Amino acid sequence: MPEIRKDPVFGRWVIIASERGLRPNDFRGAPGDHVCPFCPGNEDLTPPVIYSLPGPAGGWRLRVVRNKYPALVSEGAVDNRRDGIYDSMDGMGIHEVVIETPEHGRVLEEMPADAVADVVKTFMLRIREIKKDPRIKYVMVFKNHGRNAGATLQHPHSQIIAMPMAPLRVKQEIDGAAEYHLERGTCVFCDIVKEEAQFRKRVVAENDDFLAVTPYASRFSFETWILPKEHASHFETMPEDRAGALAEVLKTTLGKLSASLSDLSYNLIVHTMPVKEAESEHYHWHIEIMPKLTHVAGFEWGTGFYINAVSPEEAAEILNAGKTYKV
Amino acid sequence: MPEIRKDPVFGRWVIIASERGLRPNDFRGAPGDHVCPFCPGNEDLTPPVIYSLPGPAGGWRLRVVRNKYPALVSEGAVDNRRDGIYDSMDGMGIHEVVIETPEHGRVLEEMPADAVADVVKTFMLRIREIKKDPRIKYVMVFKNHGRNAGATLQHPHSQIIAMPMAPLRVKQEIDGAAEYHLERGTCVFCDIVKEEAQFRKRVVAENDDFLAVTPYASRFSFETWILPKEHASHFETMPEDRAGALAEVLKTTLGKLSASLSDLSYNLIVHTMPVKEAESEHYHWHIEIMPKLTHVAGFEWGTGFYINAVSPEEAAEILNAGKTYKV
Repeated sequence: MPEIRKDPVFGRWVIIASERGLRPNDFRGAPGDHVCPFCPGNEDLTPPVIYSLPGPAGGWRLRVVRNKYPALVSEGAVDNRRDGIYDSMDGMGIHEVVIETPEHGRVLEEMPADAVADVVKTFMLRIREIKKDPRIKYVMVFKNHGRNAGATLQHPHSQIIAMPMAPLRVKQEIDGAAEYHLERGTCVFCDIVKEEAQFRKRVVAENDDFLAVTPYASRFSFETWILPKEHASHFETMPEDRAGALAEVLKTTLGKLSASLSDLSYNLIVHTMPVKEAESEHYHWHIEIMPKLTHVAGFEWGTGFYINAVSPEEAAEILNAGKTYKV
Repeated sequence: MPEIRKDPVFGRWVIIASERGLRPNDFRGAPGDHVCPFCPGNEDLTPPVIYSLPGPAGGWRLRVVRNKYPALVSEGAVDNRRDGIYDSMDGMGIHEVVIETPEHGRVLEEMPADAVADVVKTFMLRIREIKKDPRIKYVMVFKNHGRNAGATLQHPHSQIIAMPMAPLRVKQEIDGAAEYHLERGTCVFCDIVKEEAQFRKRVVAENDDFLAVTPYASRFSFETWILPKEHASHFETMPEDRAGALAEVLKTTLGKLSASLSDLSYNLIVHTMPVKEAESEHYHWHIEIMPKLTHVAGFEWGTGFYINAVSPEEAAEILNAGKTYKV
């Protein structure tokens, strides 16, 4: 069983999960060496299906399964254990995989808008289901696309990890937003939407409901955030009919990123409120997309500072002009 | 000039430095395509020397130069500027490169102990020199070795970046240590030394003055920390005669890591107190070495949690047995 350990200095949690080392990797060995566990016909290679949407001819168009090499597992207690001067607990949680399409080589931005909206609705549905478990405090939805972003399988998929505590970074982000709200009486994300919609030098995509921007303090070259224009803390309670609008902005954003950046690798993360917490005036869910063009190095690890060689204004200009950027 | 921008939610700083994008990269193009700016005979390819140690036959055995593609530059003010709802400041600071040896292909662990001790003493000397500038609050020493660790040049080198504020992660680490001290009345790092020296399942190297261990909550497989046994907050004020003992443990540690991990890439970071702060009972300088075997992915970025497939006990066992670990 995985174990969660706490760093005694920093308070950060680490999951020690030896099973993860066993997972297959499309990016090692010769191409074509591997059988894809996410392709139709190979359903017996994944754990049983949790949720699926029917496709044409009796097949499926989307499947959710438990991760076969989970970082966290559903058994186990949520009590702290002492281990000398250290703290640990069972690696309790949920780890699911959303197989976004039956087509192995089809990337998200090339899928029909309806199919992307299905992926969004599936994320929301799974969070609403998972948060019924009283032990679960946070549900994180994320997608690693491409080798440099840490993906081990090429077939389009996302992951959902539910855990028994709100992670440090999530707390820090919410605390930061709360502090801004205390000082100025407004939601920082609402202010970002207002500022960016007016300044217009960092806008990458927009419709009535969402705004995609390269953020002012982008950590990574071509980093892009998608923000709902209407204030809301929880992603999973978004009105279902807005999934189409989000899918549209997501498709445009990823389409621009992959047009300008060859062999695009990215991490996409849904930033949302811990599931047990009430709506708040200061926190506003959003999606962060971080293209991985270079490796994060010692300076970033040591400081939490980032060095970015492409300003967000330059990045937005390149993306909107459809220019190619050479790393 | 580089610009430092502040994220309005998180409070984290980002350096926007377009010049960085221009730096050469040994890892792109054909091998042998590049002229190494750090090799003897190519001294005109680097900015003028700041400090050097004489080698045999009139040459040098170590050189310190200003970084040609700096993240921060010495001109500029340290005042905040408002930019709509955002904050920014000039990218003021110092960015130096320590060229550790004239030999292009010689890695640190293969250098004579005396030469490694010279590298350590140079770090200390440069920090003591740089901290005379009243604008400088923090000096970070780090080394990126290998492509996966973000290195762009192969010739053995380290970097020193001095900046006008103590970075967020440094503050968080010091705050965490202060909290531990408040609760238990002891230094957490002194307690780690005591605990690990007794438990002995995570010790990788040791001598009278230093202990190298795979930390209890290792974020990365084979992560290793080197801790001085005697309590001290500031690396740069270490008694000079201890540089040899540190070099010895560093050589042993890196030697074991490179024996077990093929094509080793790592980040090495000196964690030390902000230069203007007094010695403290709760903070203890140390070195963190983070081998890069896999890519950091969305889950880590979103949560600040890490998933590690090799427990530190297992890692120490593999390193001490000289076994090979296959990723």
